[in-house]
Amino acid sequence: MAVEPYRLTATQASAKIRAGELTVEEYARSLLSHIEERDPVVKAWEYLNPEQVIAQAKAMDAIPPEKRGPLHGVAIAVKDVIYTKDMPTQHGSPIYARDAPKVDAGSIIILRQAGALLLGRSMLIIQPNPSNAILTKVGKTTTTEFAATVQGPKTVNPHGTTRTPGGSSSGSGAAIADFQAPIGLGTQTGGSTIRPGSFNGIYALKPTWNSITREGQKIYSLILDTLGFFARSVEDLQLMADVFDLKDDEPPKDTFAVKGAKFALLKTMVWPQAGPGTKSAMAKAAELLKAHGAEVEEIEFDPELEELPQWHATVLHSDGRSAFLPDYRAAKDQLHEFLISHVDNTNKISRAEQLEAFDSIAIARPKVDKMLAKYDAVLVPSVVDEAPEGTSSTGSAAFNAPWTALHVPVVNIPGFKGPNGMPVGVSLVAPRYHDRHLLVVSKAVGEIFEAEGGWESTL
Amino acid sequence: MAVEPYRLTATQASAKIRAGELTVEEYARSLLSHIEERDPVVKAWEYLNPEQVIAQAKAMDAIPPEKRGPLHGVAIAVKDVIYTKDMPTQHGSPIYARDAPKVDAGSIIILRQAGALLLGRSMLIIQPNPSNAILTKVGKTTTTEFAATVQGPKTVNPHGTTRTPGGSSSGSGAAIADFQAPIGLGTQTGGSTIRPGSFNGIYALKPTWNSITREGQKIYSLILDTLGFFARSVEDLQLMADVFDLKDDEPPKDTFAVKGAKFALLKTMVWPQAGPGTKSAMAKAAELLKAHGAEVEEIEFDPELEELPQWHATVLHSDGRSAFLPDYRAAKDQLHEFLISHVDNTNKISRAEQLEAFDSIAIARPKVDKMLAKYDAVLVPSVVDEAPEGTSSTGSAAFNAPWTALHVPVVNIPGFKGPNGMPVGVSLVAPRYHDRHLLVVSKAVGEIFEAEGGWESTL
Repeated sequence: MAVEPYRLTATQASAKIRAGELTVEEYARSLLSHIEERDPVVKAWEYLNPEQVIAQAKAMDAIPPEKRGPLHGVAIAVKDVIYTKDMPTQHGSPIYARDAPKVDAGSIIILRQAGALLLGRSMLIIQPNPSNAILTKVGKTTTTEFAATVQGPKTVNPHGTTRTPGGSSSGSGAAIADFQAPIGLGTQTGGSTIRPGSFNGIYALKPTWNSITREGQKIYSLILDTLGFFARSVEDLQLMADVFDLKDDEPPKDTFAVKGAKFALLKTMVWPQAGPGTKSAMAKAAELLKAHGAEVEEIEFDPELEELPQWHATVLHSDGRSAFLPDYRAAKDQLHEFLISHVDNTNKISRAEQLEAFDSIAIARPKVDKMLAKYDAVLVPSVVDEAPEGTSSTGSAAFNAPWTALHVPVVNIPGFKGPNGMPVGVSLVAPRYHDRHLLVVSKAVGEIFEAEGGWESTL
Repeated sequence: MAVEPYRLTATQASAKIRAGELTVEEYARSLLSHIEERDPVVKAWEYLNPEQVIAQAKAMDAIPPEKRGPLHGVAIAVKDVIYTKDMPTQHGSPIYARDAPKVDAGSIIILRQAGALLLGRSMLIIQPNPSNAILTKVGKTTTTEFAATVQGPKTVNPHGTTRTPGGSSSGSGAAIADFQAPIGLGTQTGGSTIRPGSFNGIYALKPTWNSITREGQKIYSLILDTLGFFARSVEDLQLMADVFDLKDDEPPKDTFAVKGAKFALLKTMVWPQAGPGTKSAMAKAAELLKAHGAEVEEIEFDPELEELPQWHATVLHSDGRSAFLPDYRAAKDQLHEFLISHVDNTNKISRAEQLEAFDSIAIARPKVDKMLAKYDAVLVPSVVDEAPEGTSSTGSAAFNAPWTALHVPVVNIPGFKGPNGMPVGVSLVAPRYHDRHLLVVSKAVGEIFEAEGGWESTL
């Protein structure tokens, strides 16, 4: 029996569409019918307009083959802090409940030009009221408020529906794990791409900071916010890297042999926070790499970087002070207290402290690049542990924040199991602008971890 | 005879409105009638809808005094790379000729909440065509394409109409100098706020990077782009600093005495490019400060910062590579060749070179702050010389780029004269997040330069 189209990766679906074995409409109908079945449980989408998606798919099928883009018909789930001109953008905030700016984010322009099928479009209903406000429900994947709080949206983890899918890219992470779309767009300021990647047992890429435009994406911290991707295979992340023109100085070889490769294992200064799932995943990961003939050396951050997590927090809070001032002025009563505390600077962060944190991270970046460059990749924890019970908190970004601050590319690789059978990932990191190299390494490593790590998706 | 309302500074107009001596409508009518007279010459606006402005003004007059914001009725000119939900935003680019996203930039939300009268609103005409595109003309001040090229828009310098007003914030600079609005919003990535400030003989503030949200403002370079302000008085810049909540660690004293103060004069590594107007302005400025009892010590950048201008250019070009990829993919044929060259990386900047430039600037920032902190303020050139003839080029940002890269606040102070009688400004700089201090110093220094520098506006 042929596999249902909704279960295909983006690369597989794209190949079938290109070969004329699958129409975009058939593919869209398969995804929509699966979403219809699963959304009452997973709640990754606020709203979905199937007619709109089918109309889009039919229009794509009518495009002659020579005019089709590299992502022709590939379905993408978009996190709701990224502007899309034909659907509302609400940032998970009641302040923007009526907002539908007629503008595409830079990433969305690139995806549309490449022929992507944007899922979850919703009907725009122009209200005949004085302000001409556009009222509608969200047509994108869920997010925490402004991708900036840890208070979870309604979305659950598809592998354990009493647990959080992580955040803030909650909906995109859950939807990709649950086969509701092959590729999702997320963002990361703390750990909002890598954490849901780990919690949902899928691949996630946080590329080098600013290697992809953030135009049209709600700002939390300019120096931290990074667009990221979710997928169920590394090939799909490579497809995104192609479309977004990610380029290293040295194009990597097509394949990478784990045998004879040199890895490091870096537990980081946050290691005391690691739970049993992460501890055993890190040990197992190192063991598997060694078993496959790689060297794995344990390394540590330079002691002068001990305060890196605190620097990240200081930059985050002080950047939030200017970032959320407009929302604070417009509708403080509808703003989460965590964000109000940024604007009010309740932590009493002085400008001197803010600059010291900002500058200390900047000075650390080239040093850490140099340390990472000694290895084919460096293995680091993705999360504190498997996804915790409940959806009120999306979990801790403790293991992600240092890498976000350092701007380096990070790939979450699934394959390990927590004490309750939930997925646990580990991450590989590389120096800045070695994203393509990191993806090639992640592909080889991912094959091992997925096959021998001990966790497998039952979805 | 009472002064015409259009000639008032924002602070003066605001006081009169608050005292009940001037209605917002009267104020708006005065500005509009002056704009109507002058726009055929200066061309600072693409389009203006007087009825819309009057309707807005009338609505403001109907607001009861206790509900009025701190900028109640104050007219503001908005550069057309900043989103405004009730007017089109075209970024000076044909690609966006039909664009009118229904979203306000963060800065616009703050200004609206404070009660500002946004000038230049234009009618939105919803076209009954399939794409539902909104066709309209621009209702904001002119800009070079994406605020990223030096190819001038149609705007001319009001002090010499065969000359450029500078760029990329061309329209805002010219409009403020020409009394068509008291305050203008600009942006600076190279020298796009300070240069038009100097060319038009007005005050301009480029605040500390990221001290004001850049949400809703077209991206060129995340680490360089900065929102800035134009005004005809320092008080008006202070009004903006209040509204945008700019705060130093130590609130400055209300007044500053030039007598006994300690200044430095820093010609920078770009000094060989200085023309006669800037050379004489810098000499005269130092002389005036000394004549008023200040110390003026000449200092130099550390030799290790010699490549700062080149680092700025490298960051700019490589950031433009990801920033303009969406526009390149969507409509390369409508993109300026300078921006195409960024995306194509025709300068062949490697990732290693890009990171070296980015990191070297970052490492320089705290060192330069320390050097600047030894003085009450440091005097630096604003421009190469007075505004050149012709409008095809908006001039060089050579003297501005280092300070933009260093993130420090800069104020252009008018008062000097070039060889052809055009205005020439000089700048004061201070360490990051000393914006309020710098404004207080600029006020005292500006009084001297305006009175004794030798140039006076004849407009």
